[in-house]
Amino acid sequence: MSQAINRYKADLRELSFVLFEQFKVHELSGRAPYSEMGEAETKEILKSTYKFVTDVLGPLNPVGDRVGCRLENGRVVTAPGFKEAWTLLHEQGIKLLGVPSEYGGLNAPQSVVVAVEELLSGANTAFNMYPGLAFGAAELIGLCGTDAQKQRYLQKIFSGTWGGTMCLTESQAGSDVGMAKTRAARNADGTFNITGNKIYISSGDQDFTENVIHLVLARIDGAPPGTKGLSLFIVPRVRINDDGSVGEDNDVAVASLEHKMGINGSSTCVLSFGENGRCQGELVGGVENLGMPQMFKMMNGARIGVGLQGVALASTAYLNALDYAKDRKQGASITRWKDPTAPRASIIEHADVRRMLLEMKAKVEGSRALLVKLATHEDWSKVLHESDPEKAAYHHGQVELLTPLVKSYSSDQAFRVCELAIQTYGGAGYTKDYPVEQYCRDSKIFSIYEGTNHIQAMDLVGRKLGQNGGMHTQQLQQDISEFVAANSAHPTLGDSVKILGDALEALGGSVMRLLGWFQGGQIQMVPLVANRFLELMSEVVVGWLLLDAARIAEEKLADVAEGHPDRAFYTGKRYAAVFFAKNILPGAIHKAQVLSDSDSSAIEIPDEAFASL
Amino acid sequence: MSQAINRYKADLRELSFVLFEQFKVHELSGRAPYSEMGEAETKEILKSTYKFVTDVLGPLNPVGDRVGCRLENGRVVTAPGFKEAWTLLHEQGIKLLGVPSEYGGLNAPQSVVVAVEELLSGANTAFNMYPGLAFGAAELIGLCGTDAQKQRYLQKIFSGTWGGTMCLTESQAGSDVGMAKTRAARNADGTFNITGNKIYISSGDQDFTENVIHLVLARIDGAPPGTKGLSLFIVPRVRINDDGSVGEDNDVAVASLEHKMGINGSSTCVLSFGENGRCQGELVGGVENLGMPQMFKMMNGARIGVGLQGVALASTAYLNALDYAKDRKQGASITRWKDPTAPRASIIEHADVRRMLLEMKAKVEGSRALLVKLATHEDWSKVLHESDPEKAAYHHGQVELLTPLVKSYSSDQAFRVCELAIQTYGGAGYTKDYPVEQYCRDSKIFSIYEGTNHIQAMDLVGRKLGQNGGMHTQQLQQDISEFVAANSAHPTLGDSVKILGDALEALGGSVMRLLGWFQGGQIQMVPLVANRFLELMSEVVVGWLLLDAARIAEEKLADVAEGHPDRAFYTGKRYAAVFFAKNILPGAIHKAQVLSDSDSSAIEIPDEAFASL
Repeated sequence: MSQAINRYKADLRELSFVLFEQFKVHELSGRAPYSEMGEAETKEILKSTYKFVTDVLGPLNPVGDRVGCRLENGRVVTAPGFKEAWTLLHEQGIKLLGVPSEYGGLNAPQSVVVAVEELLSGANTAFNMYPGLAFGAAELIGLCGTDAQKQRYLQKIFSGTWGGTMCLTESQAGSDVGMAKTRAARNADGTFNITGNKIYISSGDQDFTENVIHLVLARIDGAPPGTKGLSLFIVPRVRINDDGSVGEDNDVAVASLEHKMGINGSSTCVLSFGENGRCQGELVGGVENLGMPQMFKMMNGARIGVGLQGVALASTAYLNALDYAKDRKQGASITRWKDPTAPRASIIEHADVRRMLLEMKAKVEGSRALLVKLATHEDWSKVLHESDPEKAAYHHGQVELLTPLVKSYSSDQAFRVCELAIQTYGGAGYTKDYPVEQYCRDSKIFSIYEGTNHIQAMDLVGRKLGQNGGMHTQQLQQDISEFVAANSAHPTLGDSVKILGDALEALGGSVMRLLGWFQGGQIQMVPLVANRFLELMSEVVVGWLLLDAARIAEEKLADVAEGHPDRAFYTGKRYAAVFFAKNILPGAIHKAQVLSDSDSSAIEIPDEAFASL
Repeated sequence: MSQAINRYKADLRELSFVLFEQFKVHELSGRAPYSEMGEAETKEILKSTYKFVTDVLGPLNPVGDRVGCRLENGRVVTAPGFKEAWTLLHEQGIKLLGVPSEYGGLNAPQSVVVAVEELLSGANTAFNMYPGLAFGAAELIGLCGTDAQKQRYLQKIFSGTWGGTMCLTESQAGSDVGMAKTRAARNADGTFNITGNKIYISSGDQDFTENVIHLVLARIDGAPPGTKGLSLFIVPRVRINDDGSVGEDNDVAVASLEHKMGINGSSTCVLSFGENGRCQGELVGGVENLGMPQMFKMMNGARIGVGLQGVALASTAYLNALDYAKDRKQGASITRWKDPTAPRASIIEHADVRRMLLEMKAKVEGSRALLVKLATHEDWSKVLHESDPEKAAYHHGQVELLTPLVKSYSSDQAFRVCELAIQTYGGAGYTKDYPVEQYCRDSKIFSIYEGTNHIQAMDLVGRKLGQNGGMHTQQLQQDISEFVAANSAHPTLGDSVKILGDALEALGGSVMRLLGWFQGGQIQMVPLVANRFLELMSEVVVGWLLLDAARIAEEKLADVAEGHPDRAFYTGKRYAAVFFAKNILPGAIHKAQVLSDSDSSAIEIPDEAFASL
């Protein structure tokens, strides 16, 4: 551990392609509410952040994993180096990138922020959850809090002086949030007395900051049952004096820490509020029973954040595997594979290794394009909010529609990509000498937290598909359809674009099938196929974005001089897209067929027939 | 750790169905070389083994994971309880089940042995590698050793007095075994002086036994390069006196231990032979340069053993997830899912949970049927060896053909099943409070060791498909084809059997496609699609075996009284088969189509186009 080295890898050329060549985020620069931030400046920020993460966060990634967190005198002690990293991160101002200028931030578009966050999260997923949760809490207070609350909390959190969390889950209330039992009783002074226990609280405590601002879902005495009776409270670990300094303890205790498969550097706490009847909370925005809609303003961002975690880990897993494949020599070329005197080849020369690498590349770059696309829609919906409400509504609709795809597809595929990365290494990948086994373990939580991927799938089929009379879905289908029409005769990509067209048609058929089940009262079929539908829809969208990237790359290729590294880069875009179209997209069509056959065995099988136990 | 509890679960009803109702292993009883072992006796052995593993091995599974192994004064110290478990295992005679009677064994058929081994391996994968490797070494000496070698080693290993290993891998020679550099120099007394280093040696050392018998691949000075120049040596850790007692140290050192993603209870050693020039080995069977074919006699069994590990872990992962799904209450029924006052449902009532459970069930039971089928072929090939050589050749051919499927499909699917099991638990599955995260970590090595799954796929497409002029493949296709013809009009299974027929046809097309590439000189396409072909072929075979099981179950169902637990059991067989046929088999057809489109992007992409690093 003493000679901790950085294993994190990112491809800055690829990041700048997605930002500037595919999604043209520089066009957002200086358009309110965003500040001026040109292409050169953004690239500089990416470069300096990459230096920071390779110097500081990357080397701490295995440390956090091996050492983990522990409880000492009721407080969490994080792994060696984490506290210093927190200080450096905030000193360097990296986290201020997306913060509004009134709080000293750079006010950059979300699309730029996600690119920078990919570097932070990929270098050290566990560490980056501490600032991630804190900023989530601050953003929620920024959106829903009273002016006094904003004034009291935002600056302190954005500057890294205080941490923050979101506290939803209780042991009986996981996906079923509405079953939360944590209670809030009104005090004479307008504050509330909070009592209850929350589990699985990420960043629930740490040893970086003098205070942690918990956002706690609780039910005010007399409120209705279920989610509609939940309110959201700001509950600092330490009470805050009128002058903003920290005061007496607020009766929030860390009852225990979870021991997990991965993200061991991140504390996952059981928190107990008001064990001694002295836990004080204030109502977010001063309004009752709006806890869920308030939380959801943070939740959407959190879900996109999980998708980002998936892209980030998958990307470094891929790039590490690629590096190993270039370096590791084993076996001879296929044409001489039985000749013991043939020269040994780097394993990247073996077809099956190339297949794994190209599958990883396509999934990583496709998921990243999806993530950045979502972020740019968010940005444009804000920019056009007043000047062009119709266009803004289109962008907002795409954000709504694509959020469950970003969360679920990226998280599911991150685990798959890590699996392929381990397989590329062979036995070495199973050891702790290389980073990919940790990536794999860390990534498994992504399909579960911030709403399991089935919750996302139900959000997609139950809410988003039909939102605004199905308009968002139709607009997405229209966008892809226009791309297919314009590029079916493309000299190098035409074949692949045609497969996309078939897949789009299959997607349309599945949407109609789902609609039929809703309308025909076969509602029980919907959750049965929801995950499969989400996956096939994601594949169509990702296939489209990869082909769009390849189209751009092919155009640019014509102007790149022989020998310039961009030739290889752009060529890679073509192969990633063609591979995805010819190897993955047919699977989307296949899934649509299976979906349309509506097998209901899983519903029909009697419970006692699963096993004789 | 003090109150270690058993988390291992097995379904003995399912095991007895596969053994006696589907594969009729009782018909082997008493047919030479096997001893008499009736159905009742076998079930009794399964029951008592299940008791042993739930009492002893199961509770040690998390202990081995958390404590792991350590090096102390150059020797491996295993986790607390492992040594006692080793003693108990051998005292109870469980490991004698498949041992020939001349060594005090019960001489049971391999098909019975795999059922019992599933219980041992599933309860504690890491622990069971110690006896597994030892017995592998003994079996190899039994097959290839001289009489003196058999006499010296077998009894001691079978009784648990000595351990054993197989030592192939070196740092530069992983999949590329022929690059091994370990040297053997002939001594005047006919023994050899061994020098070299081996890595990734499972069970390379432990604290159970006074000696460990290593089987070491090494090159005799002057032997040809590559695998053809490798010889196999018996290298005990401690030399053996003429009276069989252990004598002086044999200069075999444990240089270090690997730290791994899983199977932490199993020591994975770097072994150094002859650091002081005093490491003595004896040539297996007294023959030179036959190390690889000798090793392969053990390797086939080892590969089947890895498939068994996959079945075993996947099964207990599934049964634990099932148990949790019945117990855990969360959310309301889909018909009232927005009503907060609706009664909370066990999560097994939710469609998506049922989908995951049924997918796990189908994959577990299908992989198990494939494993037991392979074992019965092995048994019949031995029984009929003299009386009916043609029939015996058929059985032996199926063993050859199905071994890579058992190894790869079961191992790949074990990881998938563990992933689904974690997802069924939700957040709880990611914590160490439940066993599934360990199962997932433990299972990841199965796709790598004993020949990576790509090595298996190449064995299948490069050797097995065309073996004996393609006869084994044709016979398998013929067997499935007869089943399809006989059952296409089955009242409850006919639809599914027809899908199997389509999948079989698609498989046949892929075989022809592969053959065409071999003959047409497009050999580079073969490794590119080999894994996909192995998977689709496995799906066809597994689909067939599940439907065959369901056919049997449907027949028996007619005679089972209302209320008897067998009604539920047999009904479950129908649903597992139909689910697999309608949800997984179409994927086999789809894979065959993708294969036949022969996309070669992964071969064509230039190395430098993978990323700009």
